[in-house]
Formats: sequence, structure tokens, C-alpha cells
Amino acid sequence: MSALNAPFVGRQGGRRAMATPALVVDLDALERNIAVMAAFARAAGLKLRPHAKTHKSVEIARRQIAAGAVGVCCAKLGEAEALAAGGIEGILITSPVVGPFGVERLAALAGRTPGLMAAVDHPDAVDALAASGAKLTLVVDIDPGIHRTGVADAVAALALAQRIAAAPNLTFAGVQFYCGMQQHIEDFILRREAIEERTSYLTDLVRQLTEAGLAPEIVTGGGTGTHRIDAALGAFTELQVGSYVFMDRQYNDCDLTGGGPPPFETSLMVDSRVISASHPFLVTVDAGFKAFATDGGPPPILAGAAEGATYRFMGDEQGCVIPPAGEAPPRLGEIVTFAAPHCDPTVNLYDAYHLVRGDTLVDIWPIEARGRSA
Amino acid sequence: MSALNAPFVGRQGGRRAMATPALVVDLDALERNIAVMAAFARAAGLKLRPHAKTHKSVEIARRQIAAGAVGVCCAKLGEAEALAAGGIEGILITSPVVGPFGVERLAALAGRTPGLMAAVDHPDAVDALAASGAKLTLVVDIDPGIHRTGVADAVAALALAQRIAAAPNLTFAGVQFYCGMQQHIEDFILRREAIEERTSYLTDLVRQLTEAGLAPEIVTGGGTGTHRIDAALGAFTELQVGSYVFMDRQYNDCDLTGGGPPPFETSLMVDSRVISASHPFLVTVDAGFKAFATDGGPPPILAGAAEGATYRFMGDEQGCVIPPAGEAPPRLGEIVTFAAPHCDPTVNLYDAYHLVRGDTLVDIWPIEARGRSA
Repeated sequence: MSALNAPFVGRQGGRRAMATPALVVDLDALERNIAVMAAFARAAGLKLRPHAKTHKSVEIARRQIAAGAVGVCCAKLGEAEALAAGGIEGILITSPVVGPFGVERLAALAGRTPGLMAAVDHPDAVDALAASGAKLTLVVDIDPGIHRTGVADAVAALALAQRIAAAPNLTFAGVQFYCGMQQHIEDFILRREAIEERTSYLTDLVRQLTEAGLAPEIVTGGGTGTHRIDAALGAFTELQVGSYVFMDRQYNDCDLTGGGPPPFETSLMVDSRVISASHPFLVTVDAGFKAFATDGGPPPILAGAAEGATYRFMGDEQGCVIPPAGEAPPRLGEIVTFAAPHCDPTVNLYDAYHLVRGDTLVDIWPIEARGRSA
Repeated sequence: MSALNAPFVGRQGGRRAMATPALVVDLDALERNIAVMAAFARAAGLKLRPHAKTHKSVEIARRQIAAGAVGVCCAKLGEAEALAAGGIEGILITSPVVGPFGVERLAALAGRTPGLMAAVDHPDAVDALAASGAKLTLVVDIDPGIHRTGVADAVAALALAQRIAAAPNLTFAGVQFYCGMQQHIEDFILRREAIEERTSYLTDLVRQLTEAGLAPEIVTGGGTGTHRIDAALGAFTELQVGSYVFMDRQYNDCDLTGGGPPPFETSLMVDSRVISASHPFLVTVDAGFKAFATDGGPPPILAGAAEGATYRFMGDEQGCVIPPAGEAPPRLGEIVTFAAPHCDPTVNLYDAYHLVRGDTLVDIWPIEARGRSA
């Protein structure tokens, strides 16, 4: 656990004594986010299988399941292996497992992980799994039009479901339909219109499967951006929401409720420290490209600098904090706290969460599946 | 070493049997790059202290030192701790060490690491190090005008050098001057003009220190983009070049020699695999935001797809490969190999290098300092 810098973090020293940059989670906010989504799904009569690609953490998966989730989703086989090793059950691997040893690894994982399921989108992959003889439960991944993964249309979906059902060792459990592109449409009405159109496509596809005697037991999909719309439309049996545990700038820019108060709070932060203060108009902090995902723009400042201060990346290791005109920058050694611009790839940079309640460091959790993209 | 997926990589299976995405290094090219830069520095009469923030690897640092380097640079204290634990000596920490336990960690590291040095840029930091009583060797970091780190001008540099020299436990070793912004000016002539102007500033500053009886023994700086210009101008005693070991798209776009052949080769790659092939016009590979740094644009395709094919990010876990009109995309399960758009933050995503000679996997090296940004 070298990355924890364990002797230097000093629980007794509290949050300000942490080595920086540090990935910080507000435990109160995390607990509320988990409870709010669990209550929402329960009230909507939907199962919850939160996506663990967001947090990659055994402890957070455990808490989601303790709050009522039927399991978690994992994006990759390696991620699923890491969480299963921590005792997590009910894992759905949402990306196709392809490549050497993929079948062997999947079969071995299924043998030791109750409730394991995997998504497939190609007849060759089904044939390889059928030939393995391993008992596997599969869902057919449907392309919602973004052309990332999934079979192209209802004809291909039906053919793949039949292929699965025909293999004695394979079980056809249902379909997956993840509208990734629609999650971040900031306007609620436009997002609902986009999802309504896609949902009618999904509903028709499910009807065709049902008429062919392959009624899907599981219809899984949805995300933090569309979970209320998805629940109202009623096509899914379970939701794959991920980012709600943390909330990032991208999702905070989305109206999730159609004008109501935001249901979730920002719980994920990066604490950085001023390491250079040679100029009156900016200071440098110890967090750059290696401390934040860079696909979501610069990170918003949450605390530690004057209102209106901004951050600019300054390379791999550093960034600068620029105070608004007339305001002084933070001083050498002071902490500046940021929200993540995009939570999933930011989490993937760190080996541990530092859990805080207020300014008190209360726990450190390893990020077991960090880097497990293979 | 969970991230190595050790049982599944299979050295006997060769490169195509690796779980993907995988960080791959062409060992022949790496060896040539290390040798070419070592020979260049030797011929120029310059010491080499390559920047290990690029590779974060004990084995690569060892090979650079075996080829003649006097040590390596590290960006952060944690990075230095990880490489020193692997036996690397002569480490210069190039960013100011600030914050709780920083002094204790630096003192402890200096006690067990021959030749350790650290950069400072603030009188408060010097006072804290002086008060610790630990024997430390320091260089004064000079801001070359990018306002990232470093003292603001010659007056501040002289004052800080005098402050160091006045402390009985501290040794003033010299100055650091890293022109980060100039490294990537693609045109050689424009880059040389920019560096000439900055070098005259540095030379004048060194003259003032010398006249004050504080002649710097070490003048350290330079990068892969400017190493030939720096050597010709003669202001440095040693070079901090980093990216030359790997070369990425950003540096491949730079003319490093003023019209001559490129002295270094691309040795760093990411192998990905086609995991979805439902459409004739694109296929999806298993490498997205978690597999490539995203600050440098999309990664160039090196192999595995038709000439002219392009990559587009499709979220955290995947991207798509789009063949040119009239060409077929790669097939399900096939490998597509990419160059890194920007090497340092791409390396920071992976736990190991997969070393290849041609298509044969010959070794796996851990990336000991991955994630050690604190």
C-alpha cells in the first residue's frame, strides 16, 4: 500500500495533515447519496445494480448492496475480478469479454461468484462461451444508437438470444440497453424526449423477444442522468446508475429532476496544496494531469480560494489557482479543494479514498479495481 | 500485482495473448533511445539526469544510470521514495516539497539515498528545512517565465541561495531552470529563438550568483524538445530530458534536430483489442479515457488497422476505430496498437510495462512510482 503514504497521512492529524494531492470523499454525503438512490429505486419498484466502474471500491459496493442493490455492474473482467475477490456478488460485466483467456477467466470467475452475469453482442463470442462448457448467464447488449457496443437491431438481438438459449451451458437472462450519449443532455425536457424515443425502440424489441418465447427476465440500463425518466417510462427492470454516489461537474450541470432540487450531493473531492507562491496574481498547486481526469475540462474549486478563483492545468504535476481581481491567492502550504470534472477517470488515478466527516479524516479505503481495465 | 493479470498474460503466448488494454514498450527502441541520448550528452560534455516522471520505473532508471546518467529527476517526493526504495541514487526532486511531514519525509529519504537533492523556491521552505537540522543539498528553482514554480527573478534567487548557504545543515548546489512551455514549439528555429532569449536571462542570473560568491556547481534543466539547443548554448551543466525514452505524438510533431533525422523512436505503445464489431463502418476497442491520457488529443494508430484509420474516444472504457472509406475495419478480437498522445500521464494509468521485441513478450516491469503524486 505504498501509495497510501501510510505513515505520513496521520489520522490524528486530520484532513490538513494529508499528503496531497489526495482523493477525498465526504462520507456523510456519500451515505446520503447511496440512501437516496436506494429509496428512489425501491419506491419505483426497480432493482438497482449500480455501476462500480465509477468507484472501483469493494467497500462502496458493499454499502450499495447493504442499502438494497442486487449487485453491481463492472465495465471489465479485471474490475469484476477485483471486486469479486472482495466478496462482492451479483456482478454484471457490461462490456463484451473478448480475447485470449477471456473465456477461461470468465468461467473461473463465474464458478466462484454467485449471480455473475456478462453482456454479449456477437455470435462468435456466444459460440466461444458455449464451447467452454462453463455455466454462464448472459444478457444481450443492444446498441441504443451510439455504436459503442451492442447488437445493431432487433433481428440481431433475437438471433443472439436464440443462440444463447440453444447452448446447454448458457442461460439467456435478458437485455442491456445503455443510452450513454443521452445521460449528459443538460436540459431535462430534451433529455426526456431523447430517452422516450429510445425507450419505444427498446420496448418494441422486448416485445419481439417475448413473442419468440424469450421474454427477458432482466432489462438493465439507465444512468444517473436519466434514472427518473427511465423509471417513469417503465421499460427497465433494473438501473445501472453509477455517478450518483459522487456527482461530478458534468452531472451537476444536469437538471436531474425536471426543476426540482438536486437529489444528490458532490461527495468526491481532490485536496491539493499550494507549493509555489512567487507571484501576487497566481499560485501553483500540486495537482495537474496526473491528479484529475482531463476529458471534462478544468476542475471547479470548492474551497480554499476566494470566490470566483479559477484553476488552470500547468502540466502533468501542477496547476495554478488564479484569484479574481483584487483578491489575494491562497498562501504557501494552504489546501485548495476541487470537485472532479469527471469522476470515473479521476478515481482511476488514485489508490485510495480518504474519507472525511467535515475536516476529520475518519477512514482510508483502497480502490481495489483501480487500473483494472483489462 | 493484481494488475499484471499474471496468470493470463502468458509469456509463452506472446504479445497477442496479453490481456488488453496493455502498456507495451519496444525494448529495442527503448535501448536505442537511452544509448543515443547518453552518447549525445557525453559528446556535449554534459551530465544527464533524466526525468523519471515520464517512466516512474526502477528498471528504466537503472538502465539510464548504467548508460552514464548521474541519477534521475523525480517530480514529487512520493515518486522519489518509490524509486529510492528500488536502489536508485542521485535523485533530484524538481518540485518544491511543501506541507505536513514533507520535511520529515525529505530528511528521512536523504538519510538513506546517496546524492539526493531537492529544488526550493521559497524562503519559508528553506527555513523549515534549516530548522529540521537534516543534512540536505538544495538547488534554487528559477521561474523561466511560465509562473509554475521557481523564484521570480535574480534578486530572489540570490537571496534564497544566501539563505541556504547560511544554514549549517544545508548545502547550496546550484540552480534549476526548466522552460516547460518552450519544449513543444514544433518549429526548430522558433524554439531556438525562444530558448536563446531565456538562456541569456539564465546566464546573467548565474553570473550574479557567481559574483556574490555562490557560483552554482549545478545548472540543471532542459528537456527532450530543447536538448540540442540547450547543449549548443552551454548554460547547463546537466540535462533533465524525460520523454526521449518513449517519444509520444506531441514530441514526434517536433523537429528536434533542425532538419536532421529524428534521433529517437516511438517505443511506448498501447495495445487494445476489438471487442465489438456490429457495424461495417467502425469497430470498438477496449481502450478509452482510462487507457490514454486525454490532454494530448486522440492517440495515433500504429498498427492493426488500415492506413488512414482514426480513433475516437467513446467514454471511459472504449473508443472506436474508423477505417477510411472503402476499407474494412479490423475484426473482432484483433489487436489495434496506438502511440501515446502524451506519454507521462498515459504511463501513470498502468501498473506495468509489457516489454516486447517484435511480437514476442520478453519481460514485464512494474511501474513502481505510478500514482505517487503526493
